[in-house]
Amino acid sequence: MGVLYGAAYYAEYHRDDRTGTDLDLMKEAGFTVIRVGESVWSTWEPREGEFDLEWLLPVLDGAHSRGIGVILGTPTYAVPPWLQQAYPEIAAARPDGSAIAWGGRQEVDYSHPAFRFHAERVIRAVAGRYAQHPAVIGYQVDNEPGLELFHNHGAFTRFVRRLQQQYGDTETLNREWGLTYWSHRITDFSQLWRPEGNTLPQYDLAWRRYQADLTTEFIDWQAQIVRSYAREGQFVTTCISYPRPAADDRTLAGVLDVTAGNPYYAMQDHLDATKDTAALTNWTTSGVAGLFRQADRLFSSRQERFLVTETNAQSIDGSWENRPAWPGQLRQATLALISRGASMIEYWHWHTLPYGTETYWGGVLPHSLKPGRVYREVAGIGAELARIGDQLDGFVPDADVTLLWSNPSRWALQFFPPLAVAGQPDPQSYERIFDAFHRGVIDAGAQARILHTEQARDLGPEELAARHPVLIAPALYVADDADLELLRDYAAAGGHLVIGVRTGYGDQEARARVEVAPARLDGPGGVHYDEYTNIDAPIPVTGGETLVLSEAAAATAWIDGLIPDGAQTLATYDHPQLGRFPAVVTHPHDAGRITTVGTVPNPALAASLVGWLVPTTIADQIVHNPDLPVTVSSGLLPDGRRAWFLFNWSGQETTVKTVTGESIALDAFGAHLMLG
Amino acid sequence: MGVLYGAAYYAEYHRDDRTGTDLDLMKEAGFTVIRVGESVWSTWEPREGEFDLEWLLPVLDGAHSRGIGVILGTPTYAVPPWLQQAYPEIAAARPDGSAIAWGGRQEVDYSHPAFRFHAERVIRAVAGRYAQHPAVIGYQVDNEPGLELFHNHGAFTRFVRRLQQQYGDTETLNREWGLTYWSHRITDFSQLWRPEGNTLPQYDLAWRRYQADLTTEFIDWQAQIVRSYAREGQFVTTCISYPRPAADDRTLAGVLDVTAGNPYYAMQDHLDATKDTAALTNWTTSGVAGLFRQADRLFSSRQERFLVTETNAQSIDGSWENRPAWPGQLRQATLALISRGASMIEYWHWHTLPYGTETYWGGVLPHSLKPGRVYREVAGIGAELARIGDQLDGFVPDADVTLLWSNPSRWALQFFPPLAVAGQPDPQSYERIFDAFHRGVIDAGAQARILHTEQARDLGPEELAARHPVLIAPALYVADDADLELLRDYAAAGGHLVIGVRTGYGDQEARARVEVAPARLDGPGGVHYDEYTNIDAPIPVTGGETLVLSEAAAATAWIDGLIPDGAQTLATYDHPQLGRFPAVVTHPHDAGRITTVGTVPNPALAASLVGWLVPTTIADQIVHNPDLPVTVSSGLLPDGRRAWFLFNWSGQETTVKTVTGESIALDAFGAHLMLG
Amino acid sequence: MGVLYGAAYYAEYHRDDRTGTDLDLMKEAGFTVIRVGESVWSTWEPREGEFDLEWLLPVLDGAHSRGIGVILGTPTYAVPPWLQQAYPEIAAARPDGSAIAWGGRQEVDYSHPAFRFHAERVIRAVAGRYAQHPAVIGYQVDNEPGLELFHNHGAFTRFVRRLQQQYGDTETLNREWGLTYWSHRITDFSQLWRPEGNTLPQYDLAWRRYQADLTTEFIDWQAQIVRSYAREGQFVTTCISYPRPAADDRTLAGVLDVTAGNPYYAMQDHLDATKDTAALTNWTTSGVAGLFRQADRLFSSRQERFLVTETNAQSIDGSWENRPAWPGQLRQATLALISRGASMIEYWHWHTLPYGTETYWGGVLPHSLKPGRVYREVAGIGAELARIGDQLDGFVPDADVTLLWSNPSRWALQFFPPLAVAGQPDPQSYERIFDAFHRGVIDAGAQARILHTEQARDLGPEELAARHPVLIAPALYVADDADLELLRDYAAAGGHLVIGVRTGYGDQEARARVEVAPARLDGPGGVHYDEYTNIDAPIPVTGGETLVLSEAAAATAWIDGLIPDGAQTLATYDHPQLGRFPAVVTHPHDAGRITTVGTVPNPALAASLVGWLVPTTIADQIVHNPDLPVTVSSGLLPDGRRAWFLFNWSGQETTVKTVTGESIALDAFGAHLMLG
Repeated sequence: MGVLYGAAYYAEYHRDDRTGTDLDLMKEAGFTVIRVGESVWSTWEPREGEFDLEWLLPVLDGAHSRGIGVILGTPTYAVPPWLQQAYPEIAAARPDGSAIAWGGRQEVDYSHPAFRFHAERVIRAVAGRYAQHPAVIGYQVDNEPGLELFHNHGAFTRFVRRLQQQYGDTETLNREWGLTYWSHRITDFSQLWRPEGNTLPQYDLAWRRYQADLTTEFIDWQAQIVRSYAREGQFVTTCISYPRPAADDRTLAGVLDVTAGNPYYAMQDHLDATKDTAALTNWTTSGVAGLFRQADRLFSSRQERFLVTETNAQSIDGSWENRPAWPGQLRQATLALISRGASMIEYWHWHTLPYGTETYWGGVLPHSLKPGRVYREVAGIGAELARIGDQLDGFVPDADVTLLWSNPSRWALQFFPPLAVAGQPDPQSYERIFDAFHRGVIDAGAQARILHTEQARDLGPEELAARHPVLIAPALYVADDADLELLRDYAAAGGHLVIGVRTGYGDQEARARVEVAPARLDGPGGVHYDEYTNIDAPIPVTGGETLVLSEAAAATAWIDGLIPDGAQTLATYDHPQLGRFPAVVTHPHDAGRITTVGTVPNPALAASLVGWLVPTTIADQIVHNPDLPVTVSSGLLPDGRRAWFLFNWSGQETTVKTVTGESIALDAFGAHLMLG
Repeated sequence: MGVLYGAAYYAEYHRDDRTGTDLDLMKEAGFTVIRVGESVWSTWEPREGEFDLEWLLPVLDGAHSRGIGVILGTPTYAVPPWLQQAYPEIAAARPDGSAIAWGGRQEVDYSHPAFRFHAERVIRAVAGRYAQHPAVIGYQVDNEPGLELFHNHGAFTRFVRRLQQQYGDTETLNREWGLTYWSHRITDFSQLWRPEGNTLPQYDLAWRRYQADLTTEFIDWQAQIVRSYAREGQFVTTCISYPRPAADDRTLAGVLDVTAGNPYYAMQDHLDATKDTAALTNWTTSGVAGLFRQADRLFSSRQERFLVTETNAQSIDGSWENRPAWPGQLRQATLALISRGASMIEYWHWHTLPYGTETYWGGVLPHSLKPGRVYREVAGIGAELARIGDQLDGFVPDADVTLLWSNPSRWALQFFPPLAVAGQPDPQSYERIFDAFHRGVIDAGAQARILHTEQARDLGPEELAARHPVLIAPALYVADDADLELLRDYAAAGGHLVIGVRTGYGDQEARARVEVAPARLDGPGGVHYDEYTNIDAPIPVTGGETLVLSEAAAATAWIDGLIPDGAQTLATYDHPQLGRFPAVVTHPHDAGRITTVGTVPNPALAASLVGWLVPTTIADQIVHNPDLPVTVSSGLLPDGRRAWFLFNWSGQETTVKTVTGESIALDAFGAHLMLG
Repeated sequence: MGVLYGAAYYAEYHRDDRTGTDLDLMKEAGFTVIRVGESVWSTWEPREGEFDLEWLLPVLDGAHSRGIGVILGTPTYAVPPWLQQAYPEIAAARPDGSAIAWGGRQEVDYSHPAFRFHAERVIRAVAGRYAQHPAVIGYQVDNEPGLELFHNHGAFTRFVRRLQQQYGDTETLNREWGLTYWSHRITDFSQLWRPEGNTLPQYDLAWRRYQADLTTEFIDWQAQIVRSYAREGQFVTTCISYPRPAADDRTLAGVLDVTAGNPYYAMQDHLDATKDTAALTNWTTSGVAGLFRQADRLFSSRQERFLVTETNAQSIDGSWENRPAWPGQLRQATLALISRGASMIEYWHWHTLPYGTETYWGGVLPHSLKPGRVYREVAGIGAELARIGDQLDGFVPDADVTLLWSNPSRWALQFFPPLAVAGQPDPQSYERIFDAFHRGVIDAGAQARILHTEQARDLGPEELAARHPVLIAPALYVADDADLELLRDYAAAGGHLVIGVRTGYGDQEARARVEVAPARLDGPGGVHYDEYTNIDAPIPVTGGETLVLSEAAAATAWIDGLIPDGAQTLATYDHPQLGRFPAVVTHPHDAGRITTVGTVPNPALAASLVGWLVPTTIADQIVHNPDLPVTVSSGLLPDGRRAWFLFNWSGQETTVKTVTGESIALDAFGAHLMLG
């Protein structure tokens, strides 16, 4: 079926009707899919119980007649004025109990029955009307769920009931959460305080798990309703915004037929690997590795290929952040996402809107609706994908190194961040530690697989070692005994385990473990520590014969005071005080090995480390040691061949020599696809 | 009558009575005017309905006996405790509905009838008592109105009723505001959401227009009451703080007899043109051009001379911002304001207060009340103005270049700022773009006139071209078709139109236009664009033979991707990616010309551009190409002569040669006035 | 009895019982004291009126059997869930009246009778049960009181009643607070506005004084209850956190038997005198002088030795601020505190907690509970203190220079800060000005005594001059006439008075004085000023023959425009505008002298100034001119000998030569004690 290609399309947002013109332009640009209808409940149902469903028909008919498939959205993420007016109690409540005012979108508590009652009616009306339309290939239920934590009375009450069910009695809760502390012992569940004042990490982690479950339950509920209308072959998904606070991508994707997500990334010099740039927002990535990490995270949710429901067309974000791609970058990023497993690319969105909150969130067409440079580049990609056709069907992206991901650890380290940024707690600490290693993979010319801890558990130690010979576990803070013993047994089974800071420090309640750190891994790893320190500025790290480091290698943000108990020191700090601790140590463990990294490595240190972990990468089969700004992605095709993607992440054209001696010219911000 | 000269005088704020001493000192300092009484409602009316009006008499009598005129204030900006206690509902409400607590001033909703009832009574009492006093030359009603947007229930209800009246039905509102977007369509005006949650620029612009109208209506209401008491020859005004969020200076001044305003500016090195300094607050300017812009804005409100009701005497602002002028600067700034049209200069205030919020807002006298350096400088200026006498009566300040100002554009770009500052939306984006050009005028040695768009419309294209041969329209974002066609026709009629970024992009509803940009001006200007980008760091701009640029010329903040359709390129960016767009282009249009500037010019670029627009300035008639730190202001006198003001905005004394060969020595921070 | 040595001990926070193990480890570490029981009301009283008092007995018995004394805490700072559930009205209210949510600690209004009723019951239960236990040597009532200002209705009502009592009638209040200003005159005390909206410094100072009195009254109330149970020889104290907003250390300590406090300080490079570091929080100090200032402040509360109830063991503060001491620093800081008067050192806390808000606030033991580096260092200090034994009994720390401290001035300058930091008002302005001089003392190799203004008043001018020959009065903004006349008479009596900026500017109502500044001291000091300015960057200061300055000497933050009226100029600014004012002047006054410093001196200027004030320090008796990073502390022993403490505040070892020619080697971050 090829890679699906298209955009979100909002015919209803035009000031004049131009559906035909739009669809013709899409067809010419090689579009094969559009997403429709998910934002306009008040158009579907202008008055309570009064439906207007026919406005979409011309879009579906027009798409179908042009061979464009349609993903039909349910419109629940933006509730209509008549609903908020009648039931103000559905407004999502902030920690202090005040209501988030209506006027944007996603400002309601979707666990509230008054919302559910109305949502079900409109879902049934829309799905019932169009499920049989031949254009519809699948459904998106809701949109980027999990934006808000709901502090509503009902949601809190159910949280307390859930705790009662989980812990049974207050004594157990008192003990497990350590409520002796600061006089928090309760003798009745009615005494549980509200999240507003909470200062305990144990409470917060339970609250975050609960909120993520609310989202998964909501999406599951919608998916089941829609499935009761769906035809054979239609899929049900939602589009996941991975940074959302109240979502667990793994459980969310688990109740859906396919993973779909919205990777947004900074462009221009932010995609130039020869430049150092900072992230512009907490929901976009900056840099080449960041783009790949988003794709790898999408793959991780179900360990399979995925749909990109939204991604950059032009500028993204507010009116003050206009940064359209440099020529070439849209193609480059599109191919990068495909190279890591995307089986659909949908830009957000077709046309730039003349009004509304997202007036400056650029579409394929500019405000004038006259095709411009972006349309031309998008159409060029469309033509290329048409040429590729179905050759990438069954593609499975490669991986040299596997990294463990843990949503509970991310939540716990948001409440109790180990790292600081500008003197303040950094809520992105988990990502900073994780990304340090992921970037090491990319910068070393390798490819990464991301595995949820729960997925690793499902495999068991032997299978894990067999399929994932190198496994990095950074910042795995929330982990029960079994998790840590899995890691230990993985190494025993022959895997090379790399542990980063904060791994083996907490337990399943986000308590610090009353054990020598890294817990369960100190003996097997031949190293322990009883102190650690934040550092404000990078500290140079020196390697040795085993782990050769460049002069730029450095430690950042955090240093564990590692004390080797038999492990071999691979690298040390150049610092008058902290020089007494090694930076990296390694130790064989049965059939495998454990390497312990005592700091957050900077890119040079991380890349050298990965280079040592994976001396020969899959990419080496096509290019000898590709160096930034060139990277290579690859994957296996069903016939055993490989698809190779070569990228030049820089503004200078370059030439790459393959192992067969072929010279491949890469434009500035260029890419090249070869089917091996 | 000469230029009025004096200060706000609060005899009632002294801890001991010293009215006589004060007035004697004022007389010696050449004062001819004071402003009194506007801050102390609880003194005028200590208990509800109980008036104490006699305390002011000694001040009026004392002033009159010394030949000092008095501007009598109405005390409505500071409501008394007994009023807030009895009617808490008059407290101004914040977006979330909570009341702004009483305890400062201007914390009430002056559109509320319970406030109006009491305000009217005290206004009538004060005006009734003193209108006939011979010292009174005019009235100030209220004080710096427009500090708060009123989110009170009554104010919101009337807003909805106004929308109903303006748009007629919900379908029209849905269409004009684009309420299909994010499910915002309403079917009854009662469904309109409150501003707290609003995210739509269309709603916000209507809200801002409404709030400004509330202020104009309130001031008009007060003015009418006061006029019913006023004697022939007494004027009615209010003092305008131009940065206030809920005020439109043009409509406000339109209901008054004369414009009065409060230009505050940073002093010390901030007035040194050889130094680069940033603004200290969002209500003060930094730099020489900033001071002139404040004066030019005051002139713009009514296109006539104006009163300065408040301006720096000593330090201004809070206790942590003490920055008294360097010796000479008070005189320099006073003459600069006069040179641009001020017919009165009143310092704020006579004496520095021993208590209260403004304890560190310095007056002419320090806390000790012993005349010090500031008094001596103020008295020196007084003596100089006495010598000048009535020679400046009828003075009209000159202008070489005209700039269009648009309050609605300013409001729209506060909600949707195109520029960023430190990664955040910059609510001062409008001013930044406007000031870039205004500073170009000053730095080029020219003089500026500022014209409200509505005033330009009143002139029509021919008259506009005749009176204002060079017209710069920066950031004219909110503009209806007629506005843009006026600009086009202005050029056709022989004017030289210069358009800056964001001009021709929006319409009267702050919608992005569904037209090729710059809308209506792309054809006549021979250029269009379909993309634009923010830039984080300045990008050098290179000129050519037509537009010669210094090496320092650079683009800042924003670049439109200009694509010439016949226009001549005058300047280009030195940038690997953005170099594909010209920075400045120009194109003849009928009898005139349109020059399109694709960026926010830095001072060097803006000054060169203005130098090209106005090869010969009025100032050139007295000094050949005056260069910073020297500037020249001028204006016509009724007898046809010019008054010339020479300024040295630096700490080094200098000498200026006039066209007649005369050498004029200018002190450090000195100024020189010549009647041509 | 020797210096008491130990830690706060929370046996109840362990996940497993290990009281015996802990106490054994403490014994081995030389501990002689622990603090217990103050945090767990919900453990003492699990249900309303149901007490469980026996859990502590094993701790007391175990301590007693090992010769460890116990300080028993009352648990009132952390109220149990059952109490907050039943009486939500005791929640401390914020300025807007909203309740601070329960969930941390210290979130209740302890002036509320519903709180007091329950607090008294639990205090009586705990004290009644254990007062007779032989291990108990004293009591700590509550913990770090004064965290919140209580805006509760009852607290506000009593504030109004207090004003009524203090001022008698509204006319007096109107006059004293200057309520004519901005229409704030009231005619009935019921019209007094709430603090939320207040903008007047006079009101705020009264509010702050009231809130501090609430805290003192509360602690006094508790102390009296506890004393009714206490045995002969047991002391009652509370642990003071000096930066708390609602506490006056002098009056607090006045109702207790001994001062106890919690000096926390930044370690690592922050205690390296060769490095320049900024404070990490507003409740910790950075730098060597900062640590000494904390000790000197503790001494000042009662002008006698004090207990350190809490201080750094390992990392302090949140999860993102892990900065354990460099080896040696714990000992160094412990000895520094002792050298300035500490008769007890208790670390906070024994073991790092596995859960709760303070999971990353490090204890003597790490999370693993296995003794590590910190335990070893702590035990080393314990052994050293054991060797010293009772030799320091009766020790009185020395002082070369005395500095005046004023809590009301600190409060007033928090509301109206004279200094800015990053363009914003700096709420730490008072400390910045005070610390500039205190650091001058330390950097000059001298020792400081801090005296509350009220204590100085008690001495009278002659006694003050006799005991404190050099007296620095920085930022004494809130001062009545008698205070200023005391300073004047002190100089007349032979003292050398040094006044810093803001001294002599305000009165007891925080009004600016209507007098020539510095009020009452201008004549005697031979200098006055009528203007002042903030400065953004340091300005070099040049000395002369009398006051020799290094090149690094500079003015910071603020400059008074001093105009000498007979005083001798000692130093001047190197600045084109401000150079017209002297920086430091001095003038004899009767038997003494007044030196006026017109700026906030940087360390180099302050140290030179102190060097001139005290040409020969006490430390010179042991080492000639000790230079940073070496400092010397000392004190008199009852037998007339001196105890000398030598410190090396750097990472390089060094050798110090004593006046007798002895060479003393000091380790990196080392210290050496000699009994003279």
